[in-house]
Amino acid sequence: MSGVLILSVSAGRLAAPADEVGQQVAQALLAHGLPVASRQVVDEAEPAVEAALRSGVGTYGLIVILGSGGGSGGEIVRRVLARVTGARLILNERLLATLEALHARRERPLPRREERLALLPQGAVLWSVEGGEPGWLLETERSAVAVLPAVSPTLTDLLTRHLLPFAHERLGREGVLVRTLKTAGLTPSEVEQRISPWLGSGEDVSVSCVPVDGEVWVRLAARAASLPLAEAALRDLEGPVADALGVDCYGRDQESLEGVVGRLLRERGLTLAVAESCTGGLLGHRITNVSGSSVYFERGVVAYSNRAKEELLGVPRQLLVARGAVSAPVAEAMARGICRASNTPLGLAVTGIAGPEGGSPAKPVGTVFVALAYPGGAESRQFRFAGGRESIKWQSAQMALDLLRRWLLSGR
Amino acid sequence: MSGVLILSVSAGRLAAPADEVGQQVAQALLAHGLPVASRQVVDEAEPAVEAALRSGVGTYGLIVILGSGGGSGGEIVRRVLARVTGARLILNERLLATLEALHARRERPLPRREERLALLPQGAVLWSVEGGEPGWLLETERSAVAVLPAVSPTLTDLLTRHLLPFAHERLGREGVLVRTLKTAGLTPSEVEQRISPWLGSGEDVSVSCVPVDGEVWVRLAARAASLPLAEAALRDLEGPVADALGVDCYGRDQESLEGVVGRLLRERGLTLAVAESCTGGLLGHRITNVSGSSVYFERGVVAYSNRAKEELLGVPRQLLVARGAVSAPVAEAMARGICRASNTPLGLAVTGIAGPEGGSPAKPVGTVFVALAYPGGAESRQFRFAGGRESIKWQSAQMALDLLRRWLLSGR
Repeated sequence: MSGVLILSVSAGRLAAPADEVGQQVAQALLAHGLPVASRQVVDEAEPAVEAALRSGVGTYGLIVILGSGGGSGGEIVRRVLARVTGARLILNERLLATLEALHARRERPLPRREERLALLPQGAVLWSVEGGEPGWLLETERSAVAVLPAVSPTLTDLLTRHLLPFAHERLGREGVLVRTLKTAGLTPSEVEQRISPWLGSGEDVSVSCVPVDGEVWVRLAARAASLPLAEAALRDLEGPVADALGVDCYGRDQESLEGVVGRLLRERGLTLAVAESCTGGLLGHRITNVSGSSVYFERGVVAYSNRAKEELLGVPRQLLVARGAVSAPVAEAMARGICRASNTPLGLAVTGIAGPEGGSPAKPVGTVFVALAYPGGAESRQFRFAGGRESIKWQSAQMALDLLRRWLLSGR
Repeated sequence: MSGVLILSVSAGRLAAPADEVGQQVAQALLAHGLPVASRQVVDEAEPAVEAALRSGVGTYGLIVILGSGGGSGGEIVRRVLARVTGARLILNERLLATLEALHARRERPLPRREERLALLPQGAVLWSVEGGEPGWLLETERSAVAVLPAVSPTLTDLLTRHLLPFAHERLGREGVLVRTLKTAGLTPSEVEQRISPWLGSGEDVSVSCVPVDGEVWVRLAARAASLPLAEAALRDLEGPVADALGVDCYGRDQESLEGVVGRLLRERGLTLAVAESCTGGLLGHRITNVSGSSVYFERGVVAYSNRAKEELLGVPRQLLVARGAVSAPVAEAMARGICRASNTPLGLAVTGIAGPEGGSPAKPVGTVFVALAYPGGAESRQFRFAGGRESIKWQSAQMALDLLRRWLLSGR
């Protein structure tokens, strides 16, 4: 086993939103064809760190340790690593000078407690970057251990200048590449059917179907004696699989649905406004997560109450009474209303029941309508989503964005 | 080392949003005082699973394996676990019958490939629940391994009826309890100063400061010979620390700022509308993530363009020109405007520069104003947040919610 283990040492985060920095490092390594085998979060406590390192050293070719940024986590890592590898902790003068310089810049002396962070296991090599906290590397016979500051703004520099070149040299004799093709609007079994000729694991390539919230990913992996060979194998595989998925594949790897929709809106020079009910602002939030979205996103309204649907979107009261707020005609009236109010060519609307309350036999929790208004018309689609409140909100926003994406691609 | 390792086996998720199910299980165990030491995600590939299990068995007292829901992940886990523990795989008739019954309900025969999932390592005990996929348990001398379906709706039942009682019995001789006190509006060093008398790790209790996006948590941990003793130690610690944090502590453990604000609004029978610019819908999204929020949340508008600020919120054009859209008077005018438009007593507004473009020397990226309008007045606060676009959006929504929380607590 020669893969990479990414180990985040983190106080009190075991039940919290997970290790974003660990994900970021995993992404960078995978994008460069390096075989990330595992990502692990351990509590910032000596026994937990020791258990992870005792089992990891000798098992993985490279272990990347990301500290929690606090001083005590760094101390624990140093102590445990010295014990596990049998190395003594010695003062690294260059590291001490760097830490002192960093503190001097902030016009504070180095606290005594932080001085201990200049102790490194004997044989450790410092990875320095301009103006930031350095990382360091300890190589043992079977594993290399890189320790990086997780909250430092210099992490990107450390990755590019030190970790990636080192990892390529240490692990790069074999190439592994992974590609994710992302689909929207298909069920997992529909995707499996489409890609059935390629599905499964072989010696050198594997194709699998990964259902995630509101969408399905197809994961392609290629392994070969070198990175160029793996690249060629992946290319040969990706072409026909992508063809089989067709327009249902909206993007690959790190692409998001809101990013793809934004690119299409820019290309066609169109502007958009949104009218949300059950998504409560999530649709606008996702659209505006894309940098530069102010060019095409004009406004949004969250018309949670019926009164707001009437006042802000001009949905006729008799329509709300006759068909209910969660219905296709109301969704379309919301989409048309936001176009009219904002003077944009495109209007996207969502109305539904996110639950857990508010369902009825005729319209159970998860019933959602999305609608698009465009010059000369409007159309809507009905869904019945499973899951909790946040998952239903997410899937609703997903299908609204996908409705818009398909319209933009249709060239109408 | 006798803690718990939660191991998620997951195809293609190493660089993706992390293991929500693993977090959920960690949360459940920690809430019951069980010592979760590590959470790990491994690729759904035989070498990666084998490395994790070879190192985990004998290291952790209990390993909880969460499958990816696909059949191939389950097969790999069975094969590797049999190899690592030296057990043979044998057909479990009860499991086969259960799997066949589950498929029959969906009116599909059990596929040949899935039959292999009825093979379990010799000595494994089935954990059954009504109407869902079962889990199973394999006990070895030094570690117990529980294998649970990660995507099954029966996971909650499996946790309550099987995993928690078993974990208590196997690990519960010693009690470890963790409590998180969550603060808003303070910097990490302000929090450290407040709690300095307790900060640090002792034999039995530890107190640490955990900075997360837009807020700072204080983590209290107590370890004792039994759970009741740990509870008493935690109680003795929590009282004075919570007093030192005062009104800056908004909640504990799983409480969210939007949940606390929702509870206060309900208690006072008040309704709310929001006007967002740079947060783009995130504020409404967070407020409506709380189940039952339709009682107090009337509407929101995302006034991304200046025209939308004029039309939807009645912000005077000359104010936008003279002071700029990102300014205290515009924030307050937005808050007053949404109150007027929605006829709610409370209006919350955000305007700012989320970046990466749009900054200027006078108003750099991260400059944000939040404002609250209430009966008889309005007030605003200015911030300069660090971080990327999504982090600035999150911190802005956080400070807007906190402004409202403090007003609601003030009893005005």
